[in-house]
Amino acid sequence: MTLRFPPLLLGPTTKGFWSPTPVTRSEFVAAGHTLTDGSLTWPVLTLDADAVVHNIGQLASFTADRGLAFAPHGKTTMSPELFSAQLDAGAWGITVATGNQLLSAHSFGVHRVLVANEVLDPTVLRWIAATLAAEPSADILFHVDSVAAVDVAAAALAGEGRLRVLLEVGHEAGRSGVRSGDQALAVAQHVARTPGVDLVGVSAYEGALVDADAARAFLAEVRAVAEMLVGAGLLQDHVILSAGGSAYFDVVADVLGGADVGGVPSTTILRSGAYLTHDHGTYAGSTPFTRIAGHLYPALRVWAQVVSTPEDGLAIVGAGKRDVPYDSGLPVVLRRHRAGQAPVAVVGWDVTRTNDQHAYLECGDPLGTALAVGDLLELGISHPCTAFDKWRAIPVIDAEQRVVDVVTTWF
Amino acid sequence: MTLRFPPLLLGPTTKGFWSPTPVTRSEFVAAGHTLTDGSLTWPVLTLDADAVVHNIGQLASFTADRGLAFAPHGKTTMSPELFSAQLDAGAWGITVATGNQLLSAHSFGVHRVLVANEVLDPTVLRWIAATLAAEPSADILFHVDSVAAVDVAAAALAGEGRLRVLLEVGHEAGRSGVRSGDQALAVAQHVARTPGVDLVGVSAYEGALVDADAARAFLAEVRAVAEMLVGAGLLQDHVILSAGGSAYFDVVADVLGGADVGGVPSTTILRSGAYLTHDHGTYAGSTPFTRIAGHLYPALRVWAQVVSTPEDGLAIVGAGKRDVPYDSGLPVVLRRHRAGQAPVAVVGWDVTRTNDQHAYLECGDPLGTALAVGDLLELGISHPCTAFDKWRAIPVIDAEQRVVDVVTTWF
Repeated sequence: MTLRFPPLLLGPTTKGFWSPTPVTRSEFVAAGHTLTDGSLTWPVLTLDADAVVHNIGQLASFTADRGLAFAPHGKTTMSPELFSAQLDAGAWGITVATGNQLLSAHSFGVHRVLVANEVLDPTVLRWIAATLAAEPSADILFHVDSVAAVDVAAAALAGEGRLRVLLEVGHEAGRSGVRSGDQALAVAQHVARTPGVDLVGVSAYEGALVDADAARAFLAEVRAVAEMLVGAGLLQDHVILSAGGSAYFDVVADVLGGADVGGVPSTTILRSGAYLTHDHGTYAGSTPFTRIAGHLYPALRVWAQVVSTPEDGLAIVGAGKRDVPYDSGLPVVLRRHRAGQAPVAVVGWDVTRTNDQHAYLECGDPLGTALAVGDLLELGISHPCTAFDKWRAIPVIDAEQRVVDVVTTWF
Repeated sequence: MTLRFPPLLLGPTTKGFWSPTPVTRSEFVAAGHTLTDGSLTWPVLTLDADAVVHNIGQLASFTADRGLAFAPHGKTTMSPELFSAQLDAGAWGITVATGNQLLSAHSFGVHRVLVANEVLDPTVLRWIAATLAAEPSADILFHVDSVAAVDVAAAALAGEGRLRVLLEVGHEAGRSGVRSGDQALAVAQHVARTPGVDLVGVSAYEGALVDADAARAFLAEVRAVAEMLVGAGLLQDHVILSAGGSAYFDVVADVLGGADVGGVPSTTILRSGAYLTHDHGTYAGSTPFTRIAGHLYPALRVWAQVVSTPEDGLAIVGAGKRDVPYDSGLPVVLRRHRAGQAPVAVVGWDVTRTNDQHAYLECGDPLGTALAVGDLLELGISHPCTAFDKWRAIPVIDAEQRVVDVVTTWF
């Protein structure tokens, strides 16, 4: 797929870019800027070019080796440039979470989209049916987990067009998805008697489970549900199985991979999204590459200045809730940059809380590296999804801190 | 001031707007849409037209009655349309928190900006000096709280132009700002001997203090610092005092208001921002209008559908960390809308947690109002700042849910 990138001028309203006069992305990149030449300002989120290329290659190899189709979760980045890079590396399509994300991805030119969520808005349902009817290359899948949701879909269609749905299987204390085989059967039977709605597979989300063993047990139930539905004649000809956060995709491959379900040919679509940039926090500890061969590099860093050192052991940094994730771990301080000095690792200082535009760094060790007003800090983040959604344009930098590209986000 | 609004097309990438074909804001408004006519989709954040007009009027009256200048904090909304409405109601200028917010506000045409933060980036400091020199109507103020920050400013100037700074006074366990009168004197004396940097007043932030008594005691110290600096000859001719979140602006008026500081004429600039939309959470409980005459209405609501009811007493709603604030209280469920039925209040259901794109509603009362898949819920939010920054365009609706305007945000 060749994607279209919406035009974005980098101008005075583009956070992180210090550009009183608007310029295009390509003009900005062609100017040959660096991180510290005054074309960017603090705070800014950067993407490490080498790390992203490496990470895309890791999952492309993993999915190819394990025979999986890949629809990386686009909600992570909502970036057409990053969707394009993943599709160029062989991804089947893009996963999204909402109607608006589906519309965005389609406007970028993505014609295979898995909506890993229930869709209840009649406007969106009608658009899906119309798009599937009008565009032979389009494939749009979404989840159903209730009789009511199937009825909403059928009512939206009003006899016009067809929809392709995946039955979502959930787990106790989890999010959406049927909680038992009986419920799965009831929903699938209801789909079978609903004109215009076609059941094409089974989907699940294992990423919030506590460990790989729990994910393995749950995904075995998901496969069993799919086999039961095949046995009941409710899934025929071809079965789609889908799952996958960025914590247990090895287990997804083990349990849901393979060429058939109960004798019916199958395709398994992996949906991992956060792998793309990895992180210095939650995913650093939970990636499957702690269990299998391979490696991901953290690709996102926030650069922010120390704006105040008002008390001993306290430094106030100019990056806050609008700039860094705080929902799944706070940023970690990597290095200090000071004019005329080599960068040094910052030891003993932790981000302890954030305000809208500030982070509080506290030093538990009075012998820790000293921070001074005006120092530029390099912060690692935890949870890529809530980093990307705070920035509309992100400079991509190489190992020499040259700006080699700019990616955009559309949240 | 007549502001400029950056053009924004409402198109497929505009969250909340269901617009496969891009249209301008004025085209969208002229089309006479309503909340539920299919031109919007879920989740969507809406702004209540009447409530915003009322709230702007309340603070315009309050500041006029108390003789305060008003520079509402623009970080809350970063919306030129809402900046304009506040300036039209008599605000002196706009407060911002960062260099990029300053550049944005200036690009909108705001020529009086208070940066309620230290500014350490030489690029930004040079731009401020150049703008003050080039634009006679411009006034740009920012905070200093250290000798180092004054030196960074002077080094950035390199002898060219002048900067106008406010000495920031902080409090223990607070954010930035000097912690003592001795520190204040040292910084002010350093400013006095630094060419190109002019001390024009004293600033503080009282909004994170525990109660109004604590705010009153702290602000009395702030006034005392200003009087001490006047006495030392370090503030002359005219003194600016500034403070003000949205929790204690009555106390700011009481303690920092008035026409002089130590016999020198003074202006007090209030910076409250969150008052504009108020909320159903943290500010509902902490607004000064619990102590003084007046009232604010909550103006922000998120509309989202129930996408799944997978277990008894659990409903999954299609709005998550990308859509609703979760840093200072979770959303509250106001009303349920179901086709063909009158809206009903939802009792007994609480949002207990959020994922990226979902909220978990749990019912502690088995007799609580039933929620069903497809129901549209109206959610109130807590903390306006982290609501605005999740949306690029926000429909403004009237009491009949007609879309009467669209405001844009530039984070």
